[in-house]
Formats: sequence, C-alpha cells, structure tokens
Amino acid sequence: MDENFLLPNRSAERLFHEYAKETPIFDYHSHLPVSQIEDDTNFGNLTQAWLYGDHYKWRAMRACGVPEPLVSGIPEAAPDRERFAAWAEVVPQTVGNPLYHWSHLELRRYFGVNDPLSPATAMKIYDHCAEKLKQPEFSARSIIRRGNVAVICTTDDPTDDLASHAALSRGDMDHCLVYPTWRPDKALAGNDAAALNAWLDKLAAVSGHDISSYSDLLEALEARHRFFESLGCRLSDYGIERPYAAPYTDSSVAASFGKLRSGKSLAGDELEEYRSSLLRELLKMDARADWTQQLHLGAKRGNNSAAFKLRGPDTGYDSIGQFPAGDALVSLLDGLNSEDSLARTIIYVLNPGDNDMIASIAGSFMDGRTPGKIQFGAAWWFNDHKDGMNRQLSSLASIGLLSRFVGMLTDSRSFLSYPRHEYFRRLLCAKFGAEMEAGELPGDFEFIGGVVKNICFGNAVKYFGMRLPQRITLKEKNFRGKGELI
Amino acid sequence: MDENFLLPNRSAERLFHEYAKETPIFDYHSHLPVSQIEDDTNFGNLTQAWLYGDHYKWRAMRACGVPEPLVSGIPEAAPDRERFAAWAEVVPQTVGNPLYHWSHLELRRYFGVNDPLSPATAMKIYDHCAEKLKQPEFSARSIIRRGNVAVICTTDDPTDDLASHAALSRGDMDHCLVYPTWRPDKALAGNDAAALNAWLDKLAAVSGHDISSYSDLLEALEARHRFFESLGCRLSDYGIERPYAAPYTDSSVAASFGKLRSGKSLAGDELEEYRSSLLRELLKMDARADWTQQLHLGAKRGNNSAAFKLRGPDTGYDSIGQFPAGDALVSLLDGLNSEDSLARTIIYVLNPGDNDMIASIAGSFMDGRTPGKIQFGAAWWFNDHKDGMNRQLSSLASIGLLSRFVGMLTDSRSFLSYPRHEYFRRLLCAKFGAEMEAGELPGDFEFIGGVVKNICFGNAVKYFGMRLPQRITLKEKNFRGKGELI
Amino acid sequence: MDENFLLPNRSAERLFHEYAKETPIFDYHSHLPVSQIEDDTNFGNLTQAWLYGDHYKWRAMRACGVPEPLVSGIPEAAPDRERFAAWAEVVPQTVGNPLYHWSHLELRRYFGVNDPLSPATAMKIYDHCAEKLKQPEFSARSIIRRGNVAVICTTDDPTDDLASHAALSRGDMDHCLVYPTWRPDKALAGNDAAALNAWLDKLAAVSGHDISSYSDLLEALEARHRFFESLGCRLSDYGIERPYAAPYTDSSVAASFGKLRSGKSLAGDELEEYRSSLLRELLKMDARADWTQQLHLGAKRGNNSAAFKLRGPDTGYDSIGQFPAGDALVSLLDGLNSEDSLARTIIYVLNPGDNDMIASIAGSFMDGRTPGKIQFGAAWWFNDHKDGMNRQLSSLASIGLLSRFVGMLTDSRSFLSYPRHEYFRRLLCAKFGAEMEAGELPGDFEFIGGVVKNICFGNAVKYFGMRLPQRITLKEKNFRGKGELI
Repeated sequence: MDENFLLPNRSAERLFHEYAKETPIFDYHSHLPVSQIEDDTNFGNLTQAWLYGDHYKWRAMRACGVPEPLVSGIPEAAPDRERFAAWAEVVPQTVGNPLYHWSHLELRRYFGVNDPLSPATAMKIYDHCAEKLKQPEFSARSIIRRGNVAVICTTDDPTDDLASHAALSRGDMDHCLVYPTWRPDKALAGNDAAALNAWLDKLAAVSGHDISSYSDLLEALEARHRFFESLGCRLSDYGIERPYAAPYTDSSVAASFGKLRSGKSLAGDELEEYRSSLLRELLKMDARADWTQQLHLGAKRGNNSAAFKLRGPDTGYDSIGQFPAGDALVSLLDGLNSEDSLARTIIYVLNPGDNDMIASIAGSFMDGRTPGKIQFGAAWWFNDHKDGMNRQLSSLASIGLLSRFVGMLTDSRSFLSYPRHEYFRRLLCAKFGAEMEAGELPGDFEFIGGVVKNICFGNAVKYFGMRLPQRITLKEKNFRGKGELI
Repeated sequence: MDENFLLPNRSAERLFHEYAKETPIFDYHSHLPVSQIEDDTNFGNLTQAWLYGDHYKWRAMRACGVPEPLVSGIPEAAPDRERFAAWAEVVPQTVGNPLYHWSHLELRRYFGVNDPLSPATAMKIYDHCAEKLKQPEFSARSIIRRGNVAVICTTDDPTDDLASHAALSRGDMDHCLVYPTWRPDKALAGNDAAALNAWLDKLAAVSGHDISSYSDLLEALEARHRFFESLGCRLSDYGIERPYAAPYTDSSVAASFGKLRSGKSLAGDELEEYRSSLLRELLKMDARADWTQQLHLGAKRGNNSAAFKLRGPDTGYDSIGQFPAGDALVSLLDGLNSEDSLARTIIYVLNPGDNDMIASIAGSFMDGRTPGKIQFGAAWWFNDHKDGMNRQLSSLASIGLLSRFVGMLTDSRSFLSYPRHEYFRRLLCAKFGAEMEAGELPGDFEFIGGVVKNICFGNAVKYFGMRLPQRITLKEKNFRGKGELI
Repeated sequence: MDENFLLPNRSAERLFHEYAKETPIFDYHSHLPVSQIEDDTNFGNLTQAWLYGDHYKWRAMRACGVPEPLVSGIPEAAPDRERFAAWAEVVPQTVGNPLYHWSHLELRRYFGVNDPLSPATAMKIYDHCAEKLKQPEFSARSIIRRGNVAVICTTDDPTDDLASHAALSRGDMDHCLVYPTWRPDKALAGNDAAALNAWLDKLAAVSGHDISSYSDLLEALEARHRFFESLGCRLSDYGIERPYAAPYTDSSVAASFGKLRSGKSLAGDELEEYRSSLLRELLKMDARADWTQQLHLGAKRGNNSAAFKLRGPDTGYDSIGQFPAGDALVSLLDGLNSEDSLARTIIYVLNPGDNDMIASIAGSFMDGRTPGKIQFGAAWWFNDHKDGMNRQLSSLASIGLLSRFVGMLTDSRSFLSYPRHEYFRRLLCAKFGAEMEAGELPGDFEFIGGVVKNICFGNAVKYFGMRLPQRITLKEKNFRGKGELI
C-alpha cells in the first residue's frame, strides 16, 4: 500500500500522481450526519468511528462467528475496547475483501499506522488512534479539509428541518460546501399505511399543508422541494427495489390515497399504481427544478426477519436483489422524456448482471444538449470493490462514454471514508495506464490526464451545477485538458 | 496501433502474423447495401462513409451534447464538413470505447492516416480522405478486394427482388461472392395488422401467390425461400426479442391469421401462438433446405418513442433487453430436433449475462454428425468490443468448443468495417498466445495456428457449405493443420 | 503443465509448493461409486475410466460430429479401442476447454504421460495406460491413497442400504474415511406419481414404515436420516432447479400426498406447496441432526427429449438454467432461521450471473456463532473451469470472506479426478500470489499460506465436524497459521 498501490505500471503512476491525486473531491452522495459537521465532532476512539454504524464490518464479524455484543452492539453492547479487539481478530480474515484495503488505507492515510491490524497490534493501534482522534485535526471538519473535499451532499428526508444545513449555509465552513439531497422514499411506502400516515402527518406539520388528498400531498412535497432548493439542494435520490412504471389513472390513484389516509394499506395493482404515479410526479418536480435525480435500484432489504426485529434496517442483513428492471426503467424514462420532463439522471444498479443493460439504456435517452445526461452510476454497495469498480468502468467505457462519467462518491456514514476516492482514482488510472502501455490509447498524458481529472471532479462540477467553494480555482473548475472538445 | 496492436506477447504476434493476418474473410452476416456493390459506388467523403448511417457514432455524439443536425441529420442535416467536425470533437471523448479503435483503425488501414482524429486534425484528415475516396481503389468493390473478403452475405427481406444479387451472380465480380440472407422478421409482426398486411400484399405480388389463408402464407414464403436459394442463399436470420415457443393448434393459428388479414392486430396468447407457429414453420423450411439459421436474440428496440417518431428504427435508441430466453429456446430447439427438423443454428445474444447459458444450451443439441452444429454466435452489437469479444470467446471455450467456432462477422452497414475482422483476429491470437506462454497450451504453432485459421475461415467454409471464389485455393479451403482430426 | 502450471509468479509458486501441495484433500462432494472402493476395483483401460460415464467428454465428442456408438455407447457401443481413438481425435479440438487440461493432467500425474494426446499418440498411450491400470497401485483405493485424500463423501439415495459404506466403516481402509451423503431428491418428484410411488414403496420397505400418510413419509425419512448418520453421514444434498418456498398449510399438503399415493401427479400450486413443505421438513431434519446441507441450484436437465428417451438422465443434454432464485432462497433461509432451524448450508449455483447475489444472500444469515455458516459453494459443473473458478473466488472474496471457504470438491464419477483439487489450488495460489506481488496483500507467507491451507483442508475439517483418519496429524487438523484468530 505504498504510493504506487494498485498502479501496475509507469503510465498509471504518472496519471495518478500528476493528475488525479491532488484533484478536489466532489462527494455528491453520502450518508454523513450533517449535525456532526455542524458540531465539528471528534470521535472518541476507533470503535466509535468504525464499528458504531458500519454494517459492512458487522457482516464480516458475524461471518467469523463473533457474537452480537461485539458486533453491532444491538441490543446490548460490549465495551469499546473489546469490540475493537474483536474487529482486529476479524481483519486478517478479510484478505481479498475490500474491508481489508479500506481499513488499512484509513489507518495509513489518517493515522500514519503502517502495521497490519491484527490481535498482536490491536491495542497499540487502538490507543495510538484514540490519542490522535482527540486532536483538533481529527474533528469532522478537519478530516474533510485534509481530504480536499470541495462538496458534500448528504441524504435527507423531506420532513427534515435541515437546521444543520442552514447553519452551515451561513458560511462558517468555507473549504467545503455541504448540500442536502432530497430522498422521499418514505412517501412511496403505500404498503404500510400506519408508517406512511405517521410520516404524512410529520410532512403536513413541517410544510404547513394539510394533507387529506393526493393533490395535497403533491403540494406539500413541492413546498418542501422548494425549501430544499433554498438550501442549495439540486439533487434527489430514490432507493427503490425496481422502477415503478405501471399505467394508472389519476382518479384511481386519488382514491387509493384516500384509502391509505383512512388507514388501509395497499397491495397488488393498487400499490403499484400509487407508486408509479407518485414516483413520476416526484421525477417531474426534479425536472421542473432542473435538478439531477439518482435511482438506486436493486437492493433486497431486511432478509433476516429475526435480526430485523432486533436491530432494524441497515444493520447488515440485506443483499443484491433479482428484480427485472429493464422494461420498467425504459417505460419510466421514455414517459418522462416524451413530456420533456426527464431530468439529468444517475442510475445505480446493485446486481452487476444488469450493468451492460443499464449502460445501454442510458444511451437511449441522451438529448443532444446535456453531455452525459443519463449516467450509469458508480459501483454501489456490494460492488464497491476492485472487481466491481473495474466492471462498472469497463461497461461504461465499452457501451457508453467513460470520459463523461461524473465519477466516485463515498456513500458512507463515516468521515474516514475519503480514501475510497483515492482507491477509485487509482483503479481509474490503472485502467487508462494499462491501455496506454498496451498501445490501445495514445501515450499523450495531457489528453488522458485531462480525462482523468474530468472524471475525478470537472464533470461533476458541470453536471450538477452546484456552487463551489471560492478556494476552487478557475483552472480546477474548468480543467478539461485536451479532453474538452465540446 | 502498430503491427502488434492488441498482441501482448511473442506467441500472439506469431499466431497473428503467420496464421491469421493473410487468411481470407468469410463475412457471413452484414447489412451492406448490395446495390452499392453492384454499382461499385465511391463515397464522396468520410461523413457519407461514416456518419450517414452509423447509429453507434450517433449515440456517442448525442452523449456529448451534439445537436441532431450534426448527428443523424434527421430530419434536417447540417453540411457534411460541419458534421465531420462535430464527430472529430467527439472522437477523443470516446477513449475506452470501441469507436475510438474502429475509427483510428479505419483511418490507418485504408487511408494511411496515423494521427489521432481531433478538432486539430479534423479538416486535414477530411480533405485527405475525400481525395482518396474518389480514387478507383476506394470503390466498394476495391475495398472488398483489398480486404481479402471471399464471401459476403447481405440481409434481405423475402419481398426483395434481389436484382443486385442476380446481377452479381452473373459473375462480374470474381474475387468475392455475394449472397443474400433470408430475414423474414416482418412476417412475425402480428401485433401490427396494418404493417403486416402491407407487407403481405407485397409478398403476394412478388411471389405470385394470393395470400388469404395461413397456408397461402406458408406457400408464398416457401416459394420465396426457393427463389433466395436460386441466388445462392443458404442462410436465414431472425431478429427477435426472444424465442417464441408457446403451444398452439393449427386451427387457432389459421383463425388468428384470418383476423389479421381482416385488419385486427393480435395480442396476448393469440400473438404468441401466431409467432410460435410461424417461427417454427420458417425454421423447418430452413431445415428442409439444409440452410443455416441465425437467431439474433435480446434487443430492446425503439426505447425513445419521441425520437422514434422523428427518426424511425435503427437510429440509436435501442438497448440490451432483459428477456428470459432459456426455457423457450430449449423448447424451440427441442421441438424441432424431435422432428429431425433442426437446421444448423447460430444463436447470438445481446445480454452478456446469458452467454454461459446459451453456450451450454447449444451443447445439448449437437447431433453427432455435424461438427459445431449449434453455434454460440460472435459478440454482437453492444458486445462488439474488446471485453465483449473476450467474454464470448471465454464462454465458448470453457463451455463449448472454441475450435469449432465459425468466427467473426461485420454486422455492418459500411464497407470500411473490415478492420473489425482484424480486431477480432488479434484478440483471438492474444487469447491463444497468452495461454501458450503461460504453459496452458502446448507451444506448437502449427497446431494452434491451424485452429486460428479454422476459426478465421475454414470452419465457416465447411459449416455454411457455400460456393467460394475460384481464387480461394484448396489449401485455404481445407487448411486445418493439426487441428483437423475428424 | 510443469510444476509451475497456472502459477504466474514467485509468490504463487511458493504458496502452492510450500502450503497447498501437500495438504490432504477433503472431498466432501462426489459421485464416486462406493462399491468400487469396497471392491478396490481396477479399471481395464482408459476408455472404461474416462468414457464409460463422463458426459462432459461425450458433449465434446458430439460437438465434433462423433457418432454415438463411439461416444456414450448408448444404446450400442463400439469397441473400447475405437472409442478411445475417437476421443483422441477430439482432444486437440478441446483447446481452451477444461477437458484439455483435465485429460492431460490425469495422464501426467497418474501415468507419467507427458505427450499431448492426439491421433498420433493415441494407441501408444492407450496401451501404456492399460498396462499401468492393471497394477495394484492403480486400484481405486491406491489412487485415493496416492491422492492424499482424507475424506470422501459419496452421494446416496435414502433407500440405499449403504452396504458398502457399512463394510468400509468396519475399518479396513484407514488412510481415507468414506461417508454417505443424504440426497432425497426423489421424494420431491410430486410431478410424477408413478415414479414417486415406486420410490416410496422402496422407502417403506427399507425403513420398515408403512407410508400411507404424509406424516408416515416424514417418519420414514427421519428413520433413514438416523440410519445414514449411524454410518457417519453429516451432510445432505438437494439437486433442485430452484428453492421451493411457497406458503402452504399442513392439511393441504397432507391431502396432496394422499392424491399422490392414489396415483395422481401434482401440478401448479399443489406441486409447489408439496415441494415447499417437504423441502422445509427435510432441511429441519438436517438442522436437528446438526448436519450441513448443500443446495445445488439452477440446472436445466434433459433438454433434448429425443436423446433423453434413448439415453436417460446425466448423459450430456443438460444446461445452465435461468430460474430466478433470489426471493425464494431468502424466504426459505429466513423461514428456517426464524425457527432456529437453519443448518450450516452450502449454496451452489449453476448460472454464474447469480454468483454475486448468492454471495450477498449468504452473508445475511450468518449467526455470529458458526464461522462461515452459510457458504457460497465452489464453481460447479459448467463453471468448473479456470474462468468459472476464478469468478467464484472473486465474488466470494469481494462480497463474503474467502478465508472461511470450505474449498474444492471433485463432484466426479471417476477416481482419476483428484487433479481437479490440484487445479483449484493452483488457481487459489495464483490469486493470492498476484495480490501479494501487487502489494494488495502483505508479503507474509506464513499468514497467507495459512489461509490457503485452511481453504484447502482446515476449514472443511472444522465446518463439517466429521471424524478424520488417524494419520491426519493434529497440526494438519488445526493448522491455521496466523490466519486463525477466532
């Protein structure tokens, strides 16, 4: 994991060190807790930073037979030191898994720890890092600054008051701008009237709109959409198993909503139509506001119902799903496009068997105005490893245009995850470098280096259209090298 | 892109230069306009040669935000020079995409242009090539001759009069024989009675058969099938989303056909049964004639209905589909095989997730008489790139027999596409060469070189059973090296 | 195919030669005929050893146009010498296919034959091997001993009397212990009442239980389950197209069973419910007995009905299926887990497009007690080749924990198949070695070598909990190097 980690040859090294490494990060999708940025939190130790919320690590621990008090700590937690010791026993068993790389990259880049983490080194590393974490340069904001992160987009519910975002938007952090992302998934939960109604009541309260009809709902959502925009939001996100694109009539959806409001859950066609209608209305809001929308497709969640009852969602019991997405995705995008209501769209898929199909569907809805309008998004969740990233890059390059890719995101709950961008950039440079050395690409570093810089930052700047920190120079914003031709 | 482009080691180089490079081309599937061969057309400039019909390039241009007059030119076209300039701006942005390789290979091989195409070089290259294209050695026939193409099969509708084929068959081009391919897709359009009836009327006129009943249809098709055969045709092709293999009764299909003829479109089971019956009858015709049949499975077409209305089919708005094909394909092949009516069959799939399945299904219907009878066909359309070709070769090798493969085709509308065979051959030699150097294959060049030559030409000669130009020597026809053992 | 076959660098070589090569084999899934072990059979010649039962080879021969008397010999067989000669003509045409490697590895490792098999060498090799095969060191037991095989699990029907297992369990073979595996697939054949009833009558006879009701069936199965366990069985296996996990009621299943017993086959929901219920009951038996269960998912069998009529099952007419497995597999595992009735489970999939999904589902049912409890099983059947094995290793490493993998099995009907373990181990060492040399893993041979040894043997020892031969030292049993941390 030295400076040429993952870089197989001289061209790759040069691309990384001369073009990618110093380029700022545009982290357009994360699950960072914005209040911790506002408060500029310091973590107490590595267990808090790593194990309090990372279900990737929890899965690995369970697969090694570690009992739950040492894993999630839900419902009952062991002491932090013991949990870290348990994790240190698991780390050597993650050889070949991205966790092995992530963990050691973070130790190395943030804490200067070069020894492999193992039972033999665990407590020394724990204490060393606890000491470091207390220092000012390990506060949330310091970590962000040291990572050269220019933009962070968090993930937020429409009912959120965005108080921390408002505080941050008043300007007391100038090296990185933080924006909310509109994630209205809970509005789609027509299968659970109780949960939906609780959420709708909250929405009614924050929006000041009474919500008794479907059109009330749309108005309330639109009001919140505008509120999000007032705090710089230009991005939405939908975490759905598959696209909803069934035919429906407005009257039957209105009736279904009445049923929901009276406490009856929907199922079958009624549910499908409700979701199809509401998803479409939400995506049209995005188009009217000239936002970018993200679709996170294909997760099967809460597989283990016994564990779900004890620990709730996002605790490590999910999987790649097998939801046929092609036809519905085409219907959805085509319907919007036919009404000139298709916003810039990033499509992430969890089942890598869908990669090529998604890349080819994206290419069917380019409009000849917006470069890279429909993006096949970065490798996500179970694909967020060397093979998965390489597969996504290959599909996109072979079927679409890699040069127009808006690049990597962290998708993380932890401030220590920024080395994932480094990891991605190394793989990107490895791919281009290998092709240069094989004579498949010209040995023109200014050209290919420019493409690399665009994928790391420049494309996202132009694509999302968000305001940047003043520290970002014009050259960084507009660097397109020989790669910029239109 | 020098002489060892894509060849990673000495064994690969030797296989390519000593065995593959000079072997003639058997281009058994293309969309070349046969009238241009008859007329021995010269293109006026590169825009005409490259941009008038290539929807691969159109997609890339749209993905870079280029407006339509510069792209397809439909409905209104910009001047040729401007369109070429727009394409030259896009080319550097296709790094990593096969278009980058195809474009530069064609410039290099045909026009001796070694500079990368970019805005800086665009007009110089445009003028240079326009000058060249006027010369006799750039006529359609000259390009074919210089490419060492021995056979070309075009793709033709049963109602086509094949006048150009007839002219060519009278023998005024002796270096390459051109045959029609029977592609009766329009007969299957039971979902659109108006389009079908217009086509049936045309079929009735050219065949001289009145078509009022389903049996009339079959007779008319059979007559045209014989007419195609009279011009050397020994090959059919079916472009279908998925195999149709529903159970049906003759009487209900006959009734459905009556309904169609009376102007009513079919849907649901009726449509499925009509297609299942007709596809089966067509495949049985192929078997009776001892032809080879091709199934092109899995394309989802016309995704973008707004663009479809403006520009029609084959304009760059299609994608990989997600049609479960396995069960129906087995039913279809098994039904024919049980009646001893299964012709030699080449199955192409667009969704690469189906590669291994198709390769394994093909192996279930070998008959112990015809070597390589059921072929898993070459990487197609969205798979027609380095990774896609390598995947197809790997699946076929691992699950079937690569040594029996009938090899590459251009599938192209352009006479300048023959370097795709070079590209394929380089990848094939790279694969075998890598395995030789790793000790996975014996270092016996006569043996492996023979296998390479067979895949490039010899297998197709034996498999299709078409007449060859006299210039093809016995050695080329029968070269099987040590690889020929049965 | 020298000593560094498939090993691309020094680290891989060292891992293989110092750690993997000498490690005993735990062959936990095979189709070896146990009576031949009991009888210590010698094969008469290579045709008997290779061609009497290997449908992989039969498919390759048919794909080369070899007629059936030389292939399966069903219904009529050519003489053994002629069949071998035919195979020798096919072998060079299998370049790139695993058959080429398997065949030559077996010739080299067992018979010291280093020449490639071809028509030129066929008869010399045939005679040489026939001579060798007569000798005592080529008896079934000798081959097992020379392969350093410590455990063999065969595959057995619940009605089998296990007489050979009983004889072997009395201890006259001490270098390798042989256990039966419980494979009750025939009990699930509710679609064929005649076949099922014939089998049930046999089951009734061997178990001494009259079987007139569904609960009788469960009791008879439970009795046989205990009988299998009395002979050391701790492993079950289910060869099913897809998981059965439909909802059902006990009373309707009981009624369906009555219908079956009266001679009426089931279809549709009734069949699905019968299978769902019975599969669940069988898996619960496994959990109660603390066995490990195997699910072999995704084969589509008997595709070629004309050939099936002549040659029956397992004769080379099967393929990879396309059965959506995700939702049902999650339902099945979750239902059992919710009742604390989920045994250790190994899931094999035939469609490699499902690899990542299965690896991610497995991770959802780890229990925090049993390391590697749910295993994504080794590459199977059509995936049992270099690419397929590498894919399985990569998916497992990226999404699960490769270090907990129980490793390779032969799945073979032939005693000569043990070089497949060598093949697998070379690929495993190649993977780790490449990552070590690239700096992706630490260059710590004791650590990574320990992981390799665990995957080859140690993990299986702990996971299956079967008794081992006394010759296996404590060090071999417990070797976990630095890799053992929990």
